Amino acid sequence: MPTYTPPTKDMQFILHDVLEVSAMQVPGYDELDRDFTAAVLEEAGKIASDVLAPLNVVGDRQGCTLENGVVRTPDGFKEAFDTLREGGWTALDCDPEYGGQGLPYLISTAVGEMFSSANMAFNMYPGLTHGAYNTIQAHGSEAQKRTYLPKMVTCEWGGTMNLTEPHCGTDLGLIRTKAEPAEDGTYRISGQKIWISAGEHDMCENIIHLVLAKLPDAPEGTKGISLFIVPKFLVNEDGSLGARNALSCGGLEQKMGIHGNATCVMNYDGATGFLVGEPHKGMRAMFTMMNEARLGVGLQGYAQGEVAYQNALGFALDRLQGRDVTGTQAPDKPADPIIVHPDVRRNLMDQKAFVEGARAFTFWGASLLDAGHRAGDAQAEQMVSLMTPVIKGFLTDKGFETTVLAQQTLGGSGFTREWGLEQFVRDARITMIYEGTNGIQALDLVGRKLAQNGGKAIMAFFEMIKGYIKENSGQDPAFDAQFLDPLKAASKDLQAAGMYFMQNGMKNPNNALSGSYDFMHLFGHVCLGLMWARMARAARKALDSGTTDTAFHEAKIATGRHYMTRHLPMTATHLARIEAGGDTVMALAPEQFASAAG
Amino acid sequence: MPTYTPPTKDMQFILHDVLEVSAMQVPGYDELDRDFTAAVLEEAGKIASDVLAPLNVVGDRQGCTLENGVVRTPDGFKEAFDTLREGGWTALDCDPEYGGQGLPYLISTAVGEMFSSANMAFNMYPGLTHGAYNTIQAHGSEAQKRTYLPKMVTCEWGGTMNLTEPHCGTDLGLIRTKAEPAEDGTYRISGQKIWISAGEHDMCENIIHLVLAKLPDAPEGTKGISLFIVPKFLVNEDGSLGARNALSCGGLEQKMGIHGNATCVMNYDGATGFLVGEPHKGMRAMFTMMNEARLGVGLQGYAQGEVAYQNALGFALDRLQGRDVTGTQAPDKPADPIIVHPDVRRNLMDQKAFVEGARAFTFWGASLLDAGHRAGDAQAEQMVSLMTPVIKGFLTDKGFETTVLAQQTLGGSGFTREWGLEQFVRDARITMIYEGTNGIQALDLVGRKLAQNGGKAIMAFFEMIKGYIKENSGQDPAFDAQFLDPLKAASKDLQAAGMYFMQNGMKNPNNALSGSYDFMHLFGHVCLGLMWARMARAARKALDSGTTDTAFHEAKIATGRHYMTRHLPMTATHLARIEAGGDTVMALAPEQFASAAG
Repeated sequence: MPTYTPPTKDMQFILHDVLEVSAMQVPGYDELDRDFTAAVLEEAGKIASDVLAPLNVVGDRQGCTLENGVVRTPDGFKEAFDTLREGGWTALDCDPEYGGQGLPYLISTAVGEMFSSANMAFNMYPGLTHGAYNTIQAHGSEAQKRTYLPKMVTCEWGGTMNLTEPHCGTDLGLIRTKAEPAEDGTYRISGQKIWISAGEHDMCENIIHLVLAKLPDAPEGTKGISLFIVPKFLVNEDGSLGARNALSCGGLEQKMGIHGNATCVMNYDGATGFLVGEPHKGMRAMFTMMNEARLGVGLQGYAQGEVAYQNALGFALDRLQGRDVTGTQAPDKPADPIIVHPDVRRNLMDQKAFVEGARAFTFWGASLLDAGHRAGDAQAEQMVSLMTPVIKGFLTDKGFETTVLAQQTLGGSGFTREWGLEQFVRDARITMIYEGTNGIQALDLVGRKLAQNGGKAIMAFFEMIKGYIKENSGQDPAFDAQFLDPLKAASKDLQAAGMYFMQNGMKNPNNALSGSYDFMHLFGHVCLGLMWARMARAARKALDSGTTDTAFHEAKIATGRHYMTRHLPMTATHLARIEAGGDTVMALAPEQFASAAG
Repeated sequence: MPTYTPPTKDMQFILHDVLEVSAMQVPGYDELDRDFTAAVLEEAGKIASDVLAPLNVVGDRQGCTLENGVVRTPDGFKEAFDTLREGGWTALDCDPEYGGQGLPYLISTAVGEMFSSANMAFNMYPGLTHGAYNTIQAHGSEAQKRTYLPKMVTCEWGGTMNLTEPHCGTDLGLIRTKAEPAEDGTYRISGQKIWISAGEHDMCENIIHLVLAKLPDAPEGTKGISLFIVPKFLVNEDGSLGARNALSCGGLEQKMGIHGNATCVMNYDGATGFLVGEPHKGMRAMFTMMNEARLGVGLQGYAQGEVAYQNALGFALDRLQGRDVTGTQAPDKPADPIIVHPDVRRNLMDQKAFVEGARAFTFWGASLLDAGHRAGDAQAEQMVSLMTPVIKGFLTDKGFETTVLAQQTLGGSGFTREWGLEQFVRDARITMIYEGTNGIQALDLVGRKLAQNGGKAIMAFFEMIKGYIKENSGQDPAFDAQFLDPLKAASKDLQAAGMYFMQNGMKNPNNALSGSYDFMHLFGHVCLGLMWARMARAARKALDSGTTDTAFHEAKIATGRHYMTRHLPMTATHLARIEAGGDTVMALAPEQFASAAG
């Protein structure tokens, strides 16, 4: 069975040596000193490795079951949820006014990574509740907040997001779920929603559904969508649970992975709903919480990569097979551990370089989100908004790839259920799809974010990279050559790609949109290149100032160099693909795609 | 449920317009005219789509079960196997002396692709039997051939390959299974083998196991391994079945995919075995059949990509979501089919360009194998031996990637079991692992094949590319610019990589082996680039000579251009990674890999 070890040392390094969080001008960050974050991470790490990780396989094997409208979660899930609730882990970054601990989002990001690595399917239950909490907190009325938030902060009540219907996922303008106004100011919600994660289960006494629906007078398309609170049990004036609402789980989806999470068909049969915010403004409400939700999915992607890497590494250190080509390493054993073989190392280094870079990138993104929300830093908010599709799309593509690489490290064992690597692959796969497929992320990036406010955000991004290079060059020739030069080249590729879009996207949007996916990846590489430069610089600083943990800091620099020499060159290929435009992509008539058959 | 349409038109194009098989100087190829291959492919295609494809989901859901030593295959598998047997499909390229049809391997490759696309787990049963047949045919005594081959040709008897043991897979020098000589000239085989595909099942009246074991006087390592025939039922003089041999299935492996194939733990408890060939020469016997087996796995990889692509395409043509950014395409419908969106097309074109290129590459490889075996063409044999690890490693990596791309085309539906795409992903995953992991393929390529005979094979490869470019340039400026120039550039990258290995691999083999995986991919891209040039040329020729099927041939050229502009540029990145050498790959001490934790 796979194991999980919390990467607390690496997290501390990123928080304090790289981001230097306690010096950041963000309210609440001054309290984030080394000792405090160490204590939080250690406690969270224990829950992750001791409580959640052992249930990961259980969840996969048992899955969820639906009987007479009741969904049962796998053995041990409820007890684990109680442990989370009791420790206050569901309330970390929630508003103290509703019982939250008021910590920065950055801290709940670090904790969330550990919980996701340990048991992604499980962590979706509190994760979705948190998403619903955010939405009500941002858009609900005072009364709604007082009614629902305290119980959602503690996860006594769960929360869900109901967007998709059988005939529409991405194109929500097509939704058919109806909301009929009742005389008491509430609404009767009718329709079917599908793929509702945590839509029904036995771990919370109530579930607060957020449902997109159309009012009778709704304009066509996405401009006619409203958002409703539709609780499983109606809530009485005194906060106690009232009548069962007219909604039910009509089925559970059979899927490739995340079996421990109940993916529900939800039927609303005239259920009582409460409008959130203004009529027809439901999409806007959804969008304001999307940045955080998408960051959270990017995190899931590399978190699965992390735990897969850990288990691949363990195997590579133990498994004896073949001899080191440069000379026997373990003469007392029948063979050397496979970590001596260059291609096994290449594989492990690829995994390590991605996961650590992704962690730094995500933590940085979380800190920008905090700066936006807590310090009202508009530029930070703009920057993180630009990078959100990159964090979601790039980190989940690469996170999935990392689980596949890790599985490969185990050879045949990687394909067996016994070793558990295959579960990480199956679970990670969903992150590329939900919360907007990665193709949609790329479209959001190139079709919306790039051009927003006259391209202000991307300009600021380039300025930031330029500023970083300028500020840090000329002090250490090795650092300049190994990190700044490749970063400069990659950033130049990104600029050239942006330029191509400007010059050719106007003429024909297909020229830009055919390259959107490559642009998202190109952007991701530049961001990870930046993070590796920052990490290498911080590691060098630690070494120069006499750290005793030289092995860790030297490994950082070597791993960073691995990324710069072996992954960053991908930017050239992405640029070549982008500059190929829409020509071949759009060349065929639909019927020509199938021409191979017949 | 997914569907499968045999790509017979594309196969005919490759056989006759690209390879021009009936003009090749290979015995038996003169009979492969258009009508003959059309008839074979059509009949095989019917079996694939009507008999095998509907059982693919059944096999996945039911899997195999072991009860009291008996393995039951999924419902319908036995009947399907009977259909194959009755039609002579298991005997296509087998020796007529033993009841085979004596057709070229190329034809059984084309048929094998269809059967693998339709039901990979099923097709492994006849596939493994064929592998065992090959081995006995090449290395068995006359008596052994007469005893076993006729029944294996018809698949009345199945066959297996028993290599792996719990402590050794790649490093077969470590095997512990013993063969004790008995007084009657037979051997007593004792030991445990794992991951034995089709090791036990209910579809054949006997199973002929080929088992690697060590004689008491065996030298250490791989030079002390012998090969034995160990039948499930001993065979009497008159060919009838005799006593049950002392072997049994001790368990079935639970695995990520190919559930329809029984992956067995096989226990040999003093079972009677018959030595194949000379003592201690078992590895050599295994190796002679490996080229074909590895070609067969490469084929499985892209065959899964093909069927996944077909189903992704079907979804993209049907699913209505969003509007074409350049103008509504289906005004009478609530939305346009998603195939109008550039990123969906980019994804589909990537799938199509890979699968069609891979098919041509594999067919070409099969024709070289035929030229080697049937015409004694040593250069062809050398060439296919060089390319075998590329076909296996590159086509399975990319084939798996293609199933993932196809799954992505379906968005959330791709993650559900209902649509079946996720099964293609899970099934395709094993092809990167078995028959030598892809890392081992890369090692075989760079560590063995490149240097063999003083590098004669790779020199011949470069000469061949050079010759092709020279022969075909200067006649059509568009073709030169779109196909020959990129091919030339990619081939230059491959040469530079070879040069780097020569100059740096001597000093330190880690410098070469750290780049072996990238070299395998670089090589694969050059091969697919060559195949696309040949296909485009053939398509142009057909267009110029007035083909009525312009849509097909124009699509070929456009798809080829897609590959040349958007995939071939990867060679530059692979070269950059190769030229980075072993520096960062080998930088860390084993304990530094885990330094993120703690």
